[in-house]
Amino acid sequence: MTPVSRSGDRASHALRPVRITRHFTMHAEGAVLIEFGNTRVLCTATVEEKVPPHQRGSGKGWVTAEYGMLPRATHKRSEREAAKGKQTGRTQEIQRLIGRSLRAVFDLELLGERSIVLDCDVLQADGGTRTAAITGAWVAAQDAVSSLMARGVLTRSPIRDAVAAVSVGVVQGQPLLDLDYGEDSACDTDMNVVMTGAGDFVEVQGTAEGAAFSRSEMDALLDLAQAGIAELVRLQRSALLD
Amino acid sequence: MTPVSRSGDRASHALRPVRITRHFTMHAEGAVLIEFGNTRVLCTATVEEKVPPHQRGSGKGWVTAEYGMLPRATHKRSEREAAKGKQTGRTQEIQRLIGRSLRAVFDLELLGERSIVLDCDVLQADGGTRTAAITGAWVAAQDAVSSLMARGVLTRSPIRDAVAAVSVGVVQGQPLLDLDYGEDSACDTDMNVVMTGAGDFVEVQGTAEGAAFSRSEMDALLDLAQAGIAELVRLQRSALLD
Amino acid sequence: MTPVSRSGDRASHALRPVRITRHFTMHAEGAVLIEFGNTRVLCTATVEEKVPPHQRGSGKGWVTAEYGMLPRATHKRSEREAAKGKQTGRTQEIQRLIGRSLRAVFDLELLGERSIVLDCDVLQADGGTRTAAITGAWVAAQDAVSSLMARGVLTRSPIRDAVAAVSVGVVQGQPLLDLDYGEDSACDTDMNVVMTGAGDFVEVQGTAEGAAFSRSEMDALLDLAQAGIAELVRLQRSALLD
Amino acid sequence: MTPVSRSGDRASHALRPVRITRHFTMHAEGAVLIEFGNTRVLCTATVEEKVPPHQRGSGKGWVTAEYGMLPRATHKRSEREAAKGKQTGRTQEIQRLIGRSLRAVFDLELLGERSIVLDCDVLQADGGTRTAAITGAWVAAQDAVSSLMARGVLTRSPIRDAVAAVSVGVVQGQPLLDLDYGEDSACDTDMNVVMTGAGDFVEVQGTAEGAAFSRSEMDALLDLAQAGIAELVRLQRSALLD
Amino acid sequence: MTPVSRSGDRASHALRPVRITRHFTMHAEGAVLIEFGNTRVLCTATVEEKVPPHQRGSGKGWVTAEYGMLPRATHKRSEREAAKGKQTGRTQEIQRLIGRSLRAVFDLELLGERSIVLDCDVLQADGGTRTAAITGAWVAAQDAVSSLMARGVLTRSPIRDAVAAVSVGVVQGQPLLDLDYGEDSACDTDMNVVMTGAGDFVEVQGTAEGAAFSRSEMDALLDLAQAGIAELVRLQRSALLD
Amino acid sequence: MTPVSRSGDRASHALRPVRITRHFTMHAEGAVLIEFGNTRVLCTATVEEKVPPHQRGSGKGWVTAEYGMLPRATHKRSEREAAKGKQTGRTQEIQRLIGRSLRAVFDLELLGERSIVLDCDVLQADGGTRTAAITGAWVAAQDAVSSLMARGVLTRSPIRDAVAAVSVGVVQGQPLLDLDYGEDSACDTDMNVVMTGAGDFVEVQGTAEGAAFSRSEMDALLDLAQAGIAELVRLQRSALLD
Repeated sequence: MTPVSRSGDRASHALRPVRITRHFTMHAEGAVLIEFGNTRVLCTATVEEKVPPHQRGSGKGWVTAEYGMLPRATHKRSEREAAKGKQTGRTQEIQRLIGRSLRAVFDLELLGERSIVLDCDVLQADGGTRTAAITGAWVAAQDAVSSLMARGVLTRSPIRDAVAAVSVGVVQGQPLLDLDYGEDSACDTDMNVVMTGAGDFVEVQGTAEGAAFSRSEMDALLDLAQAGIAELVRLQRSALLD
Repeated sequence: MTPVSRSGDRASHALRPVRITRHFTMHAEGAVLIEFGNTRVLCTATVEEKVPPHQRGSGKGWVTAEYGMLPRATHKRSEREAAKGKQTGRTQEIQRLIGRSLRAVFDLELLGERSIVLDCDVLQADGGTRTAAITGAWVAAQDAVSSLMARGVLTRSPIRDAVAAVSVGVVQGQPLLDLDYGEDSACDTDMNVVMTGAGDFVEVQGTAEGAAFSRSEMDALLDLAQAGIAELVRLQRSALLD
Repeated sequence: MTPVSRSGDRASHALRPVRITRHFTMHAEGAVLIEFGNTRVLCTATVEEKVPPHQRGSGKGWVTAEYGMLPRATHKRSEREAAKGKQTGRTQEIQRLIGRSLRAVFDLELLGERSIVLDCDVLQADGGTRTAAITGAWVAAQDAVSSLMARGVLTRSPIRDAVAAVSVGVVQGQPLLDLDYGEDSACDTDMNVVMTGAGDFVEVQGTAEGAAFSRSEMDALLDLAQAGIAELVRLQRSALLD
Repeated sequence: MTPVSRSGDRASHALRPVRITRHFTMHAEGAVLIEFGNTRVLCTATVEEKVPPHQRGSGKGWVTAEYGMLPRATHKRSEREAAKGKQTGRTQEIQRLIGRSLRAVFDLELLGERSIVLDCDVLQADGGTRTAAITGAWVAAQDAVSSLMARGVLTRSPIRDAVAAVSVGVVQGQPLLDLDYGEDSACDTDMNVVMTGAGDFVEVQGTAEGAAFSRSEMDALLDLAQAGIAELVRLQRSALLD
Repeated sequence: MTPVSRSGDRASHALRPVRITRHFTMHAEGAVLIEFGNTRVLCTATVEEKVPPHQRGSGKGWVTAEYGMLPRATHKRSEREAAKGKQTGRTQEIQRLIGRSLRAVFDLELLGERSIVLDCDVLQADGGTRTAAITGAWVAAQDAVSSLMARGVLTRSPIRDAVAAVSVGVVQGQPLLDLDYGEDSACDTDMNVVMTGAGDFVEVQGTAEGAAFSRSEMDALLDLAQAGIAELVRLQRSALLD
Repeated sequence: MTPVSRSGDRASHALRPVRITRHFTMHAEGAVLIEFGNTRVLCTATVEEKVPPHQRGSGKGWVTAEYGMLPRATHKRSEREAAKGKQTGRTQEIQRLIGRSLRAVFDLELLGERSIVLDCDVLQADGGTRTAAITGAWVAAQDAVSSLMARGVLTRSPIRDAVAAVSVGVVQGQPLLDLDYGEDSACDTDMNVVMTGAGDFVEVQGTAEGAAFSRSEMDALLDLAQAGIAELVRLQRSALLD
């Protein structure tokens, strides 16, 4: 099988260039601009000394996420959700996914009865915004936790492990890592995988856009994702050293 | 490892008793009550001679789904979404999943410029409502297509294959098929799997509720789901023969 | 005047076959499926240990109702209210009517500072859904109260009398009891009557759909309703003996 | 039985002083301020050369109503519905009632494919706002129809008869006509009656607020309403002569 | 330059006839009908013994305003905001302006932890509704404060000065005071000016509808407004003497 | 009077450092990041080949704006408007102001029946976001128009002049140009001024936050704004030369 030709001669198992810029804005406890190629997501982490009703009085904290896309982050302008008066089903799915992914590596008891709110806003979209958001939000969450520790509010970090995410998919019969928008539009199967630094799965969401996919395709996609996420975790950790 | 004790001495790889009652109500083109143990979902299929804007003039049809739960389908009464004025994120995720799953086996060109709307309303919930809904909705869709063929509107069925779904999960370290509510609340990992009659994947949605899950756990879950769905497809086909 | 011909050779003063099935679902304190011919409404009663703000601290309880129709309970699919984001004026009128009707026979002081919520969901509609809902909701409320008494929460029943309802109308000049959908669409005057077991009026809502109606027509309709409701109260009481 | 003492020594079968002021505002085709004692409702009639979707192409017109209350029309300020973002169930019930009542005396075919919108806004409330609104709206509709005839748009009036409304109720066991706010708050049974100039019923809406009411009480209330509405129709006609 | 001809031969620096009717309705603590020519706005002031969250526990009160227009206050019927389910941007701008203007002359500490709510509802519109509303609301607020002082709740008035407002604009190159609807539609520049009794500015909102305006035009408009508002303050004070 | 001490030793009549970065994102026809000190607003211009209903068939185009703030653009996180389901009154006021300001320099006839949508999203807020948005949006609009001319869609530019905006205010009795957040919070009077390149006024919106302001203060503020805007127009033009 001739390999699918990817933009920039990228190999099928290669990530796009990833850039992580901390302190991108000045007010938030964590403020990370993450770029996967042309996809750019601003992830801020806010500490709030309150928890949602279901956690009140439990001694435990909460981690939640909100996701948005600037209207002209995309090729064609999309309607502003605030103007329409509601978030789409897609937006809600994504922000629930980001929240669950981050909570998977948080010890909510150690966090104490406070919240970390992760706002992931897409400035420019070129595929993989939700996986970039998870990967960037974890770095922002680290900065927020560091500020709590620096202020003496926490003595131990409630973050037990890294978490990062990547998309994989089958395009023209070939499994590819980290799809850009063009590849995503052309793919038969699209899967978002979220894993911990230890290499375990937090979320797997695979969808057959066109033809249903076989078990062996699934295995190949999981292999790609596993290697890609390991690389992303290295990049997250290296960004935190700067 | 001692096997987890399941209600009714169910084996870890066994489905709950499944019942499929067609023509449960009188007005819809397809009207199926599906039961997975105590979970009861009414799935109706409505044919509408119109399509949403994005399909107009394309010559192609559309298949979509809506999902609801009666307020007292659950242990504790849940607020009525119509009264609150909006559907929860959970509801939207589920109805998008049902719609995608059904479209995966539909030839929209053969359907022609008309819609099939699948309404899945949970009368009683005991775990696995979304997978029961997909499984029942396919039977209702078959009845709706049969009515179109009987009326001479269609000469060939646009349904290319069966589609069915089941949940699987890891409870106390043990992979189980078709979780009931108690098992679902206790599980570490919960996965919903949608497959075709041919045995390919349409959707895989796995979430670590507690601990992240390993690749070998994932493989075990996929094995369980594959066998369970094959059994469900047999039950769907047998119901259509009555 | 030639009598109007009714489906199933029903006499002008005859109810449709009425069936009351208790314990139709498993979670609610009361769960009644009531059928007036082809009209089928699921009425559940939920006990909640709280009251709305206007009753707090009063020592008195509250009884309220919500009403819904499954989208395909009707000949043509109606839009799902949860998806539209609001309940229609019709839905609100009906649920306010059900609530007032039930409260008319409740001693809210004896109920104590707790609520009974009656959810009336139409599975299949063929005329008279609101009157079936009131009639069924009363049976469900009885079961909920019995559960409170069985648990020793209440020692005396706060239900002072039965309440039931029926529609009457003038079709082609002839007063008829318990209109089905076809009759309802054809009638000039439509009246919903709610009465107690003692034979007093709780609500009378008459509307001239076509020609205005005379005082003597009104008297004939009230006579029909009175006899029909007496029969319904007998059926309610007999269902509670099973 | 000692007669209930009414404000201003009003007899049990007497209306409050009724005043009908036409041309109260300058822009609308009909603009009537109607007063029943201290209750003051501004009723405007607007002619629009369009009909709602369900009437398009039918050659028939439409008559509809909207109802509102200024926030401080009442003793205690009520929240502004526009600010809350929705109309209460009560508002919707009332505006549906006004619309049905006016349509009952309109020949929609003669009206032609245009609409008359009746806006009934309560400037000051002291009981009976919905019945005052119906009574005033009919006068405003007459003025709107007259303007259409004066302009030669219509050659025959589509209004077949008068329509007016009044409330009646049982207070301390005594049937009373045209309840003011204090009487309405104290009454056991409250009934709104809408009748034509010919003396037939358009709507009867009776509700037992406290004790259920007997058939003989109902008869007494209907007698009171019948006489009161006959008087209101005389006042409407006399106002139109000015 | 030939002077623009104004309705009623009004001079360019003349107000329309202004009428202020106190106690126009009976329930509110202040209830003023203000008329600027054909523009008629009902301004009620309500005292509430509570403050919004941002003032709770501060010992300070709050003054706020809501604005509405009856659907047929205008030439063409405008949609009812309560029916649409939201207030337009224009409505929100106006009610925020009225609230700020009134607060500018209130000593919130002297008011104590209570609110005055000013409801400004336009019964008839002919230009300048927001400036009439501010001018009338101040008189209603005075009446509300007087009632608090009469009841002994306040011993000193929290109102430090008068506040009134007027519109000015450039029509066909000529600066005019107090534009009516026809002039407003024709003007190039429209400015709303709010000033205190002492002659200082509270708000200046100028908008070039057509051509941008020069500094000298601005100066001329401010001169006109200053004189017009001084006259309005005299009228407010004289109304309070009645 | 001792001059107020400003951050960075800024003079009372000095702008903060202004930076204009074109092509900040890749999809929009115009995409400008504008910075006034720490205030950073992303302004994108989108060309759409359609106009709103009120312009259809007129041969004229439309220019409109939407405004948003990322939740953590501010010191304290503000609630996401899309999640709340509505835009605040403040947001609506600002986006209406931006739209009017841009339309003031557009020849809508020359634009032809198409729209330019200006999305102004605040990434970081430190006072003056609305005036930065107007100033940046004009540059983005220029880029969008240039793209239309480059593609031959337009032969003459519909932009007649520059438009830019700045805030001015009185802090501790001293008139200051271009307030940052700290100054804005402390000021007695705050005025936003929008002017054309030719030096005429498009909008003047002055508000006394604390004490009302005198005519001479107003004159001083207008002088400051005039000079500041002239400087901003030079910076806009210079950015377009890059």
